[in-house]
Amino acid sequence: MKLLHIDSSLLGNKSVSRDLTAAIVAREKVLHPGLEVIYHDLVATPIQPLTPAHVATRFGNSAPTDPGVLADIAAGDRYIDDLFAADLIVIGVPMYNLSLPTHLKAWFDRVSVVGKTFDFDDSGLPLGLLPPGKKTFVVTTSGGVYSEGPLPPFLDYQEAIVNTLLNFLGLSDIITFRVEATPTRPENIAATRVKIAALVV
Amino acid sequence: MKLLHIDSSLLGNKSVSRDLTAAIVAREKVLHPGLEVIYHDLVATPIQPLTPAHVATRFGNSAPTDPGVLADIAAGDRYIDDLFAADLIVIGVPMYNLSLPTHLKAWFDRVSVVGKTFDFDDSGLPLGLLPPGKKTFVVTTSGGVYSEGPLPPFLDYQEAIVNTLLNFLGLSDIITFRVEATPTRPENIAATRVKIAALVV
Repeated sequence: MKLLHIDSSLLGNKSVSRDLTAAIVAREKVLHPGLEVIYHDLVATPIQPLTPAHVATRFGNSAPTDPGVLADIAAGDRYIDDLFAADLIVIGVPMYNLSLPTHLKAWFDRVSVVGKTFDFDDSGLPLGLLPPGKKTFVVTTSGGVYSEGPLPPFLDYQEAIVNTLLNFLGLSDIITFRVEATPTRPENIAATRVKIAALVV
Repeated sequence: MKLLHIDSSLLGNKSVSRDLTAAIVAREKVLHPGLEVIYHDLVATPIQPLTPAHVATRFGNSAPTDPGVLADIAAGDRYIDDLFAADLIVIGVPMYNLSLPTHLKAWFDRVSVVGKTFDFDDSGLPLGLLPPGKKTFVVTTSGGVYSEGPLPPFLDYQEAIVNTLLNFLGLSDIITFRVEATPTRPENIAATRVKIAALVV
């Protein structure tokens, strides 16, 4: 059994999302002895944004030639392999400027590849290509409170977009731990810890 | 009078968003003789994603010391200066994996700085700090059609999020040119060209 663990916070060992994804991984190790963990720290090892050369190599009419770009695409495809291999996926998603960390968007850009992880059905609707049976745990953290104010919910492009991007790839079994007001309400973090310790799957 | 022109498409001279932002800039030059244009091609000159060192320098307790990070922050702050200086802003936004290009998110991360471009009022609501009177033109392009199907509108995290991020900074006078089905419906591009040529402000 394999678990894919992804962190994207800039805050290192002060990060609440990193702390809580680590707690989920620890709990899953207890639940599934022998669990193999693949870890991607997207800040320690950032994924370069796509370039025009990537697009030309994926979609261009001429055969790709640049060895640097080919090597980078091959490296990026390993992120896709890890998604296919994982039974459990754990992703830490801090809110940066109302939505996802740029580091995490760069990961979605690498793993969202038509014909590999998604496609379109006969009526033009998207179809995720990751096989069923995977369970995904998402930890979303934010400094402000959007769900019950004072910040309006329409400013929140964090939880909905990460769920949509995961659904798009075929990941529909998602458990989200939403932790708002991380600097001011430590009780929210403590309550999430209790929920994580109580996980039975 | 100054215009800030931002492109973020990976497709170079095949890009519809680049073509249409250039058309807007050309039209604005006709409307405002002597218009000064500041151009940021976020793909030709990518903005590096924020790092833990940036966060520590902005928000840390100790005085910043790393000269590389300080220089990079100073370079990033020039993007803020350009926003303050601009009377007109033109942004090209292709849809990449349902939302913004990573290159453009990196720009928003640099210009969304608390105390500089936004703050919170006494009731905790966000308050954009860019002065009123600026007009923003946004060109959004997508290969699929979300507004009327077959793709469901809830998959579209492009137009709403870019408007929200601009509003957040205080930019509320926004004219959006939405161009869907760019590869299959050239008439959509032609119709947008007509609208741009008819701009009177």
